[in-house]
Amino acid sequence: MADHYIDKKMYYHDTDAGGVVYYARYLEHLEEGRFEFCLSKGVNIAESAKEGAIFPVVHFEIDYKSPARYGDQVRIFTSIEKTGFSSIHFLQEIKKGDMALIKAKTVLACVNEALKPRAIPDKIKQALKKA
Amino acid sequence: MADHYIDKKMYYHDTDAGGVVYYARYLEHLEEGRFEFCLSKGVNIAESAKEGAIFPVVHFEIDYKSPARYGDQVRIFTSIEKTGFSSIHFLQEIKKGDMALIKAKTVLACVNEALKPRAIPDKIKQALKKA
Amino acid sequence: MADHYIDKKMYYHDTDAGGVVYYARYLEHLEEGRFEFCLSKGVNIAESAKEGAIFPVVHFEIDYKSPARYGDQVRIFTSIEKTGFSSIHFLQEIKKGDMALIKAKTVLACVNEALKPRAIPDKIKQALKKA
Amino acid sequence: MADHYIDKKMYYHDTDAGGVVYYARYLEHLEEGRFEFCLSKGVNIAESAKEGAIFPVVHFEIDYKSPARYGDQVRIFTSIEKTGFSSIHFLQEIKKGDMALIKAKTVLACVNEALKPRAIPDKIKQALKKA
Repeated sequence: MADHYIDKKMYYHDTDAGGVVYYARYLEHLEEGRFEFCLSKGVNIAESAKEGAIFPVVHFEIDYKSPARYGDQVRIFTSIEKTGFSSIHFLQEIKKGDMALIKAKTVLACVNEALKPRAIPDKIKQALKKA
Repeated sequence: MADHYIDKKMYYHDTDAGGVVYYARYLEHLEEGRFEFCLSKGVNIAESAKEGAIFPVVHFEIDYKSPARYGDQVRIFTSIEKTGFSSIHFLQEIKKGDMALIKAKTVLACVNEALKPRAIPDKIKQALKKA
Repeated sequence: MADHYIDKKMYYHDTDAGGVVYYARYLEHLEEGRFEFCLSKGVNIAESAKEGAIFPVVHFEIDYKSPARYGDQVRIFTSIEKTGFSSIHFLQEIKKGDMALIKAKTVLACVNEALKPRAIPDKIKQALKKA
Repeated sequence: MADHYIDKKMYYHDTDAGGVVYYARYLEHLEEGRFEFCLSKGVNIAESAKEGAIFPVVHFEIDYKSPARYGDQVRIFTSIEKTGFSSIHFLQEIKKGDMALIKAKTVLACVNEALKPRAIPDKIKQALKKA
């Protein structure tokens, strides 16, 4: 299982008229999970962008197993499946207690300011390997 | 190619600090594409929910090929790959002119108000087949 | 009454668990209304930012009179109340048919890239006066 | 000064192409502040809706004094200005360290499931008075 998690509460702004969390909203929660995961390894993605290493999402897939609702407390687990020359593959899971709500896979590319692929900075690659 | 499309402009609220459309935002645009696709076949998903047929997203995958930016005009193409007993598989593409920005696949389940799987109402199934 | 309007449909992503459009969402719709209003006067706010005239919102107030719901078609009216040396005051209204849903007032400042106040470029000021 | 606050970090999904937090996003943060304020007084707004007391926003006003950016840590202060028969007036402030970013005022109405005004349940009114 993933070695890193953050806790989040679902608020009204997360929900839709179906009474559950809107399907796109989880992508924001998952972004937060990845950001905090990286930060816990000493990698600040907000700073790395200023240094010319930007990490856009190039592929994303998600299974919605059970819905979260207004007021729910969920836990977002994040781990790295693999890192390539200029890509990072994340696996993430959102759980409410023992119940799996979401499983997701996100592939980030590493690009420069012209949005062209570049090698992941070595400092970042080494830091994430400690995962 | 898909037989249905809608046109949309990207606004400031769609963008992020990277200067491009935020990765979760496309899921809202794609929802609009599916809604209008269904409506063009005579199926109003907003109404069907009131009649006990709700269509939550159970699986979603997306490839981000090129980013959209503030002020861009994009076209969202929608088609159905297949329909099952209680699922609908959509294929969608977002293009800016001739350039493909997004390819996405969305699987909707058909559930009742207790969020249990149920057969897609026949009227809806027949209408969507005319695609 | 305002001389400019856009039409918009409310989608699932606009709604919350109360079954109505979430209170923050109208600010996105109102942004679209202001963008299109300016464009109709020949002013492209997305372009002006590249030329060093950025228009952040510095004050906003809104009355929520009646809620919009999933699938509703609304009309967003926009007019300018006044323009100052470095500010533009918009009045906006959202209606569903004859029913007023929203009344809002937005004050934009004109700032440079360092986010310091600057005069509204003359070309823009003249164009908006034609309102 | 307000007796209640929550801390929040600004993520990529909060930002726009201007490199700062999008003006509508603060309304989500402010909602979280009010929710947690009420919870700290023993009032769970998510639960009260199930019991027929719903609190839609009927008026909102906000001054944007300084922008928050990606990665910023902000503090959201919440207090009650006054409560009426069927309304609650909140005052809120968002600060980054000592710097005020946002001042906002929100008026909630108390309505029943038909969205008609009703008295604030006494239990809630008493609990909030302890503020």
